[in-house]
Amino acid sequence: MLVGMSQHHVNALIDLLDLEPIEVNIFRGVNPDEERQRIFGGQVAGQALVAAARTVDDDRAVHSLHAYFLRPGDPNVPVLYEVDRIRDGRSFTTRRVAAIQHGRAIFHMSASFHIAEPGFDHLDEMPDVPEPDGLPTRQERFAAAGIEDTYGPSALDVRYITNDPFNRREALPPTQRVWFRANGDLPDGQVLHTCLLTYASDMTLLDTTLLPHGSGATDRSVMMASLDHAMWFHGSFRADEWLLYDQHTPAASGARGLATGRVFTQHGRLVANVVQEGLIRQVEP
Amino acid sequence: MLVGMSQHHVNALIDLLDLEPIEVNIFRGVNPDEERQRIFGGQVAGQALVAAARTVDDDRAVHSLHAYFLRPGDPNVPVLYEVDRIRDGRSFTTRRVAAIQHGRAIFHMSASFHIAEPGFDHLDEMPDVPEPDGLPTRQERFAAAGIEDTYGPSALDVRYITNDPFNRREALPPTQRVWFRANGDLPDGQVLHTCLLTYASDMTLLDTTLLPHGSGATDRSVMMASLDHAMWFHGSFRADEWLLYDQHTPAASGARGLATGRVFTQHGRLVANVVQEGLIRQVEP
Repeated sequence: MLVGMSQHHVNALIDLLDLEPIEVNIFRGVNPDEERQRIFGGQVAGQALVAAARTVDDDRAVHSLHAYFLRPGDPNVPVLYEVDRIRDGRSFTTRRVAAIQHGRAIFHMSASFHIAEPGFDHLDEMPDVPEPDGLPTRQERFAAAGIEDTYGPSALDVRYITNDPFNRREALPPTQRVWFRANGDLPDGQVLHTCLLTYASDMTLLDTTLLPHGSGATDRSVMMASLDHAMWFHGSFRADEWLLYDQHTPAASGARGLATGRVFTQHGRLVANVVQEGLIRQVEP
Repeated sequence: MLVGMSQHHVNALIDLLDLEPIEVNIFRGVNPDEERQRIFGGQVAGQALVAAARTVDDDRAVHSLHAYFLRPGDPNVPVLYEVDRIRDGRSFTTRRVAAIQHGRAIFHMSASFHIAEPGFDHLDEMPDVPEPDGLPTRQERFAAAGIEDTYGPSALDVRYITNDPFNRREALPPTQRVWFRANGDLPDGQVLHTCLLTYASDMTLLDTTLLPHGSGATDRSVMMASLDHAMWFHGSFRADEWLLYDQHTPAASGARGLATGRVFTQHGRLVANVVQEGLIRQVEP
């Protein structure tokens, strides 16, 4: 892929995360110009966080979010984001966002923002992994496997470390590690980088729950859908520099799989924790 | 403590989790007859889950919840729980609950319920730990340390495995393990056992974030408050049988600490995952 072309995709993603203000607490997000059956969940999560952040003073940063995916998003119409200003406290600000299409909520998020405070510091250490630059790109892996990549937004450079997402035939360890970053430059401003991480964090995570079963996201015998999404942020980072997404699946039962993720900078600093549960229903392919 | 007395406390907890129906979607919860400055967060979480479950058909069980603590609960007035029936789908039901006092929300919870479905199964294995019966009770530990137990509801038998909550002077490993169970018998019915686990899961968890700093929940130089609470459930269990609460803290920064918990039955089956972030602000004692 030409450099100019990938920066073009990144710019399109930046535009996607730049919502149109409709009223003080109401914002409208568009969808990317690509063929999809339903809106990518990370897009709705990222846009909802943008909407919430637009209603919060600059002196406080998002430190957590909790969301439920309620209905599939329709890629053919815009998404309306309605923000409810739950609490404006001295130290904390809380927002609730409903993403609405066709008169119904497709997604609910709550997010909390906090002023900068000094305090205790400790962070999980990064596992020992190969550096990203020598690893094949996601596009190269898909091309080599002869599978159409209907999932991966080309605005992101995603490099699998542990397992290919394809050709899984036997039970694998319950861990998946990928490097990722925006496939071009981003402007400064932590809000954008945090919203882009939120967008990206919906990728590959649920797929982790299929590793112990020798299956994967491209397996047509499994119907997958994100059910919820939760994130906790621990400081500043750039999403156009490499981030390690260290994923684990602690549980699957009742046609649901649970996955956890830790996000580290390339320098080894933990910057986010993620948890997602999803439907992983076995179906006739 | 006499056996009859502890069953009396358990019965009081069962009563606490039995809300008064006010209208179809509105329930009222009372507070325990004890001196407290603010309502115990686990009580509000447990009662909110009771309210949500009362509006959901018996054929579906709660599999996850996400909550934010917004304001301190006043122990001198009842708590009103208002349920919003977000979605009644074929497989999933979603509820949002607001806990209200003095005209303002003190707590928000979203919870999702799912019909029973067959599917993939895998669960984290239980760590190797000592059995609970030989360990001192929480009450015995508090008494030995000469500290008044203003926190631990006597309806629960809590046995620390790894660290005492007191007299921490040096940095400790970021892990805390406790056994707990209702200190008496509970009636059958998974909803009650799940709501009681929700209640109990707010105990000891945030304290875990202080281990790497040689501090603990009884340390007057730290102001602690739960900020959020999320749980994922993986099957049936009884809360009047021993449950292992295996806790870890991946991060603390900006006066906030994050803790994760895994709940296992004594037979080693993972039945829940928990995540909580809390304020851990250093103050003048």
